[in-house]
Amino acid sequence: MELPDTKCDVPAQRYKLVIAYDGTQYAGWQIQPSGLAVQECVNIAMHKLFPGASILQGSSRTDAGVHARGMVAHVDIPKTEARMTGYKMVLALNAHLAEDIRVCKVTRAPSTFHARFNAKGKQYRYLIWNHSAMDPLLRTQAWHVTRKLNIQAMRDGARLFIGKKDFKSFAANHGYEIKSTIRTLTACRIQKSGPLISFVIEGDGFLYKMCRGIVGTLVQVGLGRFPAEQITEMLEKRDRRLSGMSAPAHGLILQKVFYS
Amino acid sequence: MELPDTKCDVPAQRYKLVIAYDGTQYAGWQIQPSGLAVQECVNIAMHKLFPGASILQGSSRTDAGVHARGMVAHVDIPKTEARMTGYKMVLALNAHLAEDIRVCKVTRAPSTFHARFNAKGKQYRYLIWNHSAMDPLLRTQAWHVTRKLNIQAMRDGARLFIGKKDFKSFAANHGYEIKSTIRTLTACRIQKSGPLISFVIEGDGFLYKMCRGIVGTLVQVGLGRFPAEQITEMLEKRDRRLSGMSAPAHGLILQKVFYS
Repeated sequence: MELPDTKCDVPAQRYKLVIAYDGTQYAGWQIQPSGLAVQECVNIAMHKLFPGASILQGSSRTDAGVHARGMVAHVDIPKTEARMTGYKMVLALNAHLAEDIRVCKVTRAPSTFHARFNAKGKQYRYLIWNHSAMDPLLRTQAWHVTRKLNIQAMRDGARLFIGKKDFKSFAANHGYEIKSTIRTLTACRIQKSGPLISFVIEGDGFLYKMCRGIVGTLVQVGLGRFPAEQITEMLEKRDRRLSGMSAPAHGLILQKVFYS
Repeated sequence: MELPDTKCDVPAQRYKLVIAYDGTQYAGWQIQPSGLAVQECVNIAMHKLFPGASILQGSSRTDAGVHARGMVAHVDIPKTEARMTGYKMVLALNAHLAEDIRVCKVTRAPSTFHARFNAKGKQYRYLIWNHSAMDPLLRTQAWHVTRKLNIQAMRDGARLFIGKKDFKSFAANHGYEIKSTIRTLTACRIQKSGPLISFVIEGDGFLYKMCRGIVGTLVQVGLGRFPAEQITEMLEKRDRRLSGMSAPAHGLILQKVFYS
């Protein structure tokens, strides 16, 4: 469901919000008929404080269970209602939100700023706990992979995703046609610290479930299911059935959204 | 309540366990009349698998809400029942535990090994989120301090805790007499990464709530409430009323227990 970019009918001030959330209890970012969405919760808090505000527009549509530290959204607030500083708005909005959603920052933005269309890039992080026993403190934020992963093979594979590529093989079908499946990945790094494996994936845009497709495939490389080089062929074939599995949602965090 | 170091009546094998837990839902490590303790849960799982096992003895008595990544415990299992490898015991015990408690490792130990009395040192970690809005992903594992902390002043203070000192001013009254309040701290480091402040505190032993007393006092130094140098005087006076507040339990993790 695509929400209209509702504008206020009266002179309004546009604001940019940075929002963090633990996605465990939510049906994703975007308002939808089934389940409670993060956008809905922030929107309700916003309208309690500013009844004339527009609907909040997010930069990204994270899936159910995916987390965020740097979701960006914009909203228009009638000038007659917009009398608080950004800092006060942060405190006031958070007072109306559950503890698993926090507004981290609110700043004034030009009326031309659009959280989604102006985004120049995004950084996602993905966590894996690679040990026979899960770390209980990471159980809602990391994928538990019990079999030992070959990190070198995964790093060899990760490099093959970098650059301007057609990522059709690594994205799930959205249910509707998209113009292009070509995206540019600027980083796909894997760090290891004991059993904790962290992925940093950065690019100018991401297709539906693309990050999870990349991580799931690299894990299968790490398990010896595919050689790293096969990723080149998977990219060329443009067929989701030829690439690896999709990693579970709860290991993924939308870390940052970049604007010029 | 001190549990007897119950031994098996029959020939037994001693095991050393490393246990991790999210302490949010528990009344601490040690079995007690009020509330469910972590020791109790592991003990129940243990006795389902090994009915003749002794009561599990832990290295430390973490408070309600405190977490662990490296709690150590020992248990005796009758030789007639001890037929699994350590790796299988990990899987079997975890199958009988809730997700917020995990047995990470089980190894055979000599019958003289005692998790508490043989411990040569411990490492605790403490997390603080220093920003007006809490990170929702750390809300059960970090103390939210909204006012900006002076890290340099805190580091100056932290150094004064290192060495062999009388920590009476930094420990809560246990309700019973202890032989000595002298302990040796080998590390008290503060790391900062954006709004995340991590403490690493290592020593040969810790008094009741000593870590939380140290962190709470250092936070008050960071807020400008005391100058760092006053810590020397606080240590000398041996009076809990003269030192700073106790930091909340949920920021604390028992990270490692050291044995020779």
